[in-house]
Amino acid sequence: MSRTLWNDALGVPHTIDQRGLPFERREIALRSCADCEAAIREMRVRGAPLIGAVGAWGLALAIEADASDDALRKAYERLAAARPTAVNLRWALDRVLRRVAPAPAAQRAALARQEAAALCEEDAACNASIGEHGARLLRVLAEQRSALAGMAGADAIPLNLLTHCNAGAIATVEHGTVLAVVQRLHEQGVAVHVWVDETRPRNQGASLTAWELAERGIAHTVIVDNAGGLLMMQGRVDAVIVGCDRVAANGDVANKIGTYLKALAARDNRVPFYVACPTSSIDVDTADGSSIPIEERDGREVTHVVGRLDDGALAAVRVVPEGSAVANPGFDITPARLVTALVTERGACEPSHAAIAALLRRDARVAAE
Amino acid sequence: MSRTLWNDALGVPHTIDQRGLPFERREIALRSCADCEAAIREMRVRGAPLIGAVGAWGLALAIEADASDDALRKAYERLAAARPTAVNLRWALDRVLRRVAPAPAAQRAALARQEAAALCEEDAACNASIGEHGARLLRVLAEQRSALAGMAGADAIPLNLLTHCNAGAIATVEHGTVLAVVQRLHEQGVAVHVWVDETRPRNQGASLTAWELAERGIAHTVIVDNAGGLLMMQGRVDAVIVGCDRVAANGDVANKIGTYLKALAARDNRVPFYVACPTSSIDVDTADGSSIPIEERDGREVTHVVGRLDDGALAAVRVVPEGSAVANPGFDITPARLVTALVTERGACEPSHAAIAALLRRDARVAAE
Repeated sequence: MSRTLWNDALGVPHTIDQRGLPFERREIALRSCADCEAAIREMRVRGAPLIGAVGAWGLALAIEADASDDALRKAYERLAAARPTAVNLRWALDRVLRRVAPAPAAQRAALARQEAAALCEEDAACNASIGEHGARLLRVLAEQRSALAGMAGADAIPLNLLTHCNAGAIATVEHGTVLAVVQRLHEQGVAVHVWVDETRPRNQGASLTAWELAERGIAHTVIVDNAGGLLMMQGRVDAVIVGCDRVAANGDVANKIGTYLKALAARDNRVPFYVACPTSSIDVDTADGSSIPIEERDGREVTHVVGRLDDGALAAVRVVPEGSAVANPGFDITPARLVTALVTERGACEPSHAAIAALLRRDARVAAE
Repeated sequence: MSRTLWNDALGVPHTIDQRGLPFERREIALRSCADCEAAIREMRVRGAPLIGAVGAWGLALAIEADASDDALRKAYERLAAARPTAVNLRWALDRVLRRVAPAPAAQRAALARQEAAALCEEDAACNASIGEHGARLLRVLAEQRSALAGMAGADAIPLNLLTHCNAGAIATVEHGTVLAVVQRLHEQGVAVHVWVDETRPRNQGASLTAWELAERGIAHTVIVDNAGGLLMMQGRVDAVIVGCDRVAANGDVANKIGTYLKALAARDNRVPFYVACPTSSIDVDTADGSSIPIEERDGREVTHVVGRLDDGALAAVRVVPEGSAVANPGFDITPARLVTALVTERGACEPSHAAIAALLRRDARVAAE
């Protein structure tokens, strides 16, 4: 599969404007820090890892234009403010900053480019690894099911996963996190079917996850966000797997609004609930979920729904009467007690303070930073 | 407030075609059994009590056209099949049938009209009573909150309710069930604010509940179905109150898809969860929720969203890619263990087999039927 963020022959980073998906796939060039900041702020790009990578390129492009300390600081702040909930964004910016800050101004542009490119390579490798670890966990479930079906003389039925929002390749530089797991299972010949929450208000499930699964020929069914509880009660979901925006030191998970409701239903029906989570999304400085700020987003996302008219044109229709107020919190917190495991590039991890600390210590290079 | 189902000066029943709401309020005449059946099947009318009342009028109009046993049986079956999940529909049809079946054909039309009219009067009175009982329960919560705020020297804040789907006047002959409770609190001077789930896929919350609350000047905020869990975790919901399509003998509740997820969140956050429930929605022949059939509805409700374009025209936009399958279960089951109380026209009732049986015995007239 091709990358979501790539450089053309002249080194100019490019990505896909995701706002037209699944109906229009439009490539955009990121020629300046302002282009990158706008892409993040206007949600042309989304997904924590991709936002981080675009942020890193934004800082590199700012340095190419002006390598002074003052310009560097301003660009950092401008990019960091484009999406305050995304811890990966600040992590990526810090990484580029650490690399260039000690260097003389004349060397900074080249160093920043190297660092942004390295960060992209590492994201792709990280996601491939999450895919391996997640597929190993879920293959066990699939094998247990097959064995039970075999004993009962029943036909094998696919492994039924449920996901919320989009943690696909389109949310990362390459592979995705949740999608990497699904794709790896698919490649390994495990019959897999994905229930895709549409994920109001922005419908990333219906418009991105469904589109990515269709592109890969993976069986899936789109449902409204209200339906997952019933499906779990009916035994039609073997596991839930979602991405995350930030994981606190104790394992609490901030992810797209509605994730918490699915975690409650999973627990009530003894369905495992996995969070695909690059270690860069773990914020050890956040003690628990209660201190994660919840972004209140534009009310128009609630009052209007964007889709395609019969004539093929994209349009927004109003679904809430003019006289009614709306609220639009972007994220919710899933308490660690509802999470079966975090699936990271270093392996599965129990969502507890001790296990997360041990996981992060495991990589000496990171610990030494 | 005016009625949702009324007779004009010539006795012709009329109602509102709810499919254009909140943007277009269009009255329709129900001149025949076929009109009534179509209104139910096409969801021009919705809400268990209103469906029952329209069904009763449908049978009365069928009898006016042909009072033979054969025509009566055919009309009964046709109407009953228009919405199989709605136990009120069959209940209302049975009631008219019992009244007319023993009578000679020449008297049946007048008897059927009397019975349909009586059923409508009783629905209005029943809902007013649910409003009284529910307001009494919730006023206690509001007073506790005010007392706590007073002790803390804080300003009074409104009683925050959350509701899913629509159990408004527009779902009944008059008053509504959940709305009757909210309206009664409002009339009694209790400051109340309602979080309104938009209720995908048909958006009855955004399009009907919000519209009804706005018409009555009651404070409310529309949210996506994903948001309620976070709001409860943040302490911004004092109680959840929803309607129901059917309640089983053990207190399990069938209601609009997504209700179960809100009940789980309420339990996880110690928020009371009330079900406004006329006793006519209790089906003692249904032992528990597992035997309630779940209607699979048209997939177009998931793939398309109906709303208003900027130019004022109503339009449907596609939100799911062409190549993706969809599923659309209409209802889910909220287990009795998650329900704080059923609020009926005879008072609040614990959602248990024993308490429900006692409640139904309480009215000797009904028991004697």
